[in-house]
Amino acid sequence: MPQERIAPVETIKVTAERAIETDDVLAVEEPLEIRVAWRSGGEQREKPISVTMRTPGDDFDLAAGFLFTEGLIRSGSEIEGIRQWGSPNVVRVALAEGATIDSAKLDRHFYTTSSCGVCGKTSLDAVRVMQSRLPKPPRIDRSLVHRLPELLTENQSAFHATGGLHGAAILRANGDLLRIREDIGRHNAVDKAIGSLVREEPASLSGAILMVSSRASFELAQKAIVAGIGVLASVGAPSTLAVDAAREFGLTLLGFVRDGRFNVYAGEVE
Amino acid sequence: MPQERIAPVETIKVTAERAIETDDVLAVEEPLEIRVAWRSGGEQREKPISVTMRTPGDDFDLAAGFLFTEGLIRSGSEIEGIRQWGSPNVVRVALAEGATIDSAKLDRHFYTTSSCGVCGKTSLDAVRVMQSRLPKPPRIDRSLVHRLPELLTENQSAFHATGGLHGAAILRANGDLLRIREDIGRHNAVDKAIGSLVREEPASLSGAILMVSSRASFELAQKAIVAGIGVLASVGAPSTLAVDAAREFGLTLLGFVRDGRFNVYAGEVE
Repeated sequence: MPQERIAPVETIKVTAERAIETDDVLAVEEPLEIRVAWRSGGEQREKPISVTMRTPGDDFDLAAGFLFTEGLIRSGSEIEGIRQWGSPNVVRVALAEGATIDSAKLDRHFYTTSSCGVCGKTSLDAVRVMQSRLPKPPRIDRSLVHRLPELLTENQSAFHATGGLHGAAILRANGDLLRIREDIGRHNAVDKAIGSLVREEPASLSGAILMVSSRASFELAQKAIVAGIGVLASVGAPSTLAVDAAREFGLTLLGFVRDGRFNVYAGEVE
Repeated sequence: MPQERIAPVETIKVTAERAIETDDVLAVEEPLEIRVAWRSGGEQREKPISVTMRTPGDDFDLAAGFLFTEGLIRSGSEIEGIRQWGSPNVVRVALAEGATIDSAKLDRHFYTTSSCGVCGKTSLDAVRVMQSRLPKPPRIDRSLVHRLPELLTENQSAFHATGGLHGAAILRANGDLLRIREDIGRHNAVDKAIGSLVREEPASLSGAILMVSSRASFELAQKAIVAGIGVLASVGAPSTLAVDAAREFGLTLLGFVRDGRFNVYAGEVE
């Protein structure tokens, strides 16, 4: 039985004039554990590698996207299969013959081996291990950028019901919509959209456009870069470190994409 | 030298009519490593326990708040001292004589020991280990609730500059503002505000009101409950699991607090 993405909850709506009991619809939030199984030297190995609070739905895409954007796999062909594992909140990714998990990469998140301690530069170094500078980004027309926010809201069904979900859309540079996904966590929405494409071979991410309903943090820029996406556009503000990463790796970064305007922080728009 | 919270960045502002080069101001995002040192059986121990992407500033408050809201310490008196440690992005918390870190609690985040696997109920169980049901929450007047969003925006200086920071305010039930903090991460803004009070003894958190500029996720509800806060009010939507947690632990939970209205998801408002 699929888990629901949204759920009814009783609430009291209060305005200056009155308070009325009513039913509201909220975004469902549940933990998801991602486990990875692989063979190493004839031996079967298995490890839980992440627990994320997510909105149920597209969980296999989320798992595939997480492994890909964190640099733990290099393509969808490294995945043999993905299954629910004992609970609707656990998915297990079996890697294909020859694919392994590098536990140094798992530890990467803690930055503790860096000689300079912990700094923004260390975060950029961590990306450099996974990805070199991107190829020249696609030419993108400003009229397409102006259309992105509407495209996102038009296709975000659960957001309209709850007001509580982030959206992530992936488009070709010509504006064709490839995928759109929603989640209570913005990074999960991105991993679901990317993962859905990664599970197809060949994945059509190279030079694509990623539009997010949220702010553009370093983490989202990192995921876009590692996925080989050419343009990251966000409704909200970027952070300094997201801009640094975009400029270093050749990602076109657009912020405040709403109300007929946007800012170009890295790269170019026609 | 203190690190800056906001930084100028060159950008091109594009509207339907024109594109102009200009300087923009963005929120700074840098990693912070939190290390804890304590004595166990005459032996000195030390462990890095978290790396979070945060906006520099109030880092000692962030470290104290993180330890407290994650249930790793029970009061500010368990902290002997907090220092920068080799880098502006590393803080080291030395625990007082007799205080220790329970590594089972550190592992708690992974939920892997639960008999039911991973589910929302497991997440609630994890809170139950740290906190029993809250005492009766404070009586809170709806006219105070209507004033909360304005209070938050009036006091969020860096947000106005960047549009990219979350705010968290802690107030007494009578409306007196105790603390307000900003960060690019909503959980960090909450940890900074709570940590600042935890470092004072006695901490004045019991029955207080926490107002956040973001959505109310399970994680924020958990932090409020563990801190003994009585009311969590959010500008955005709550999640289902945040509502479940609030109802189980006796936290008053208000959502969509903006534009002269709000919804009561748990508890009561006068």
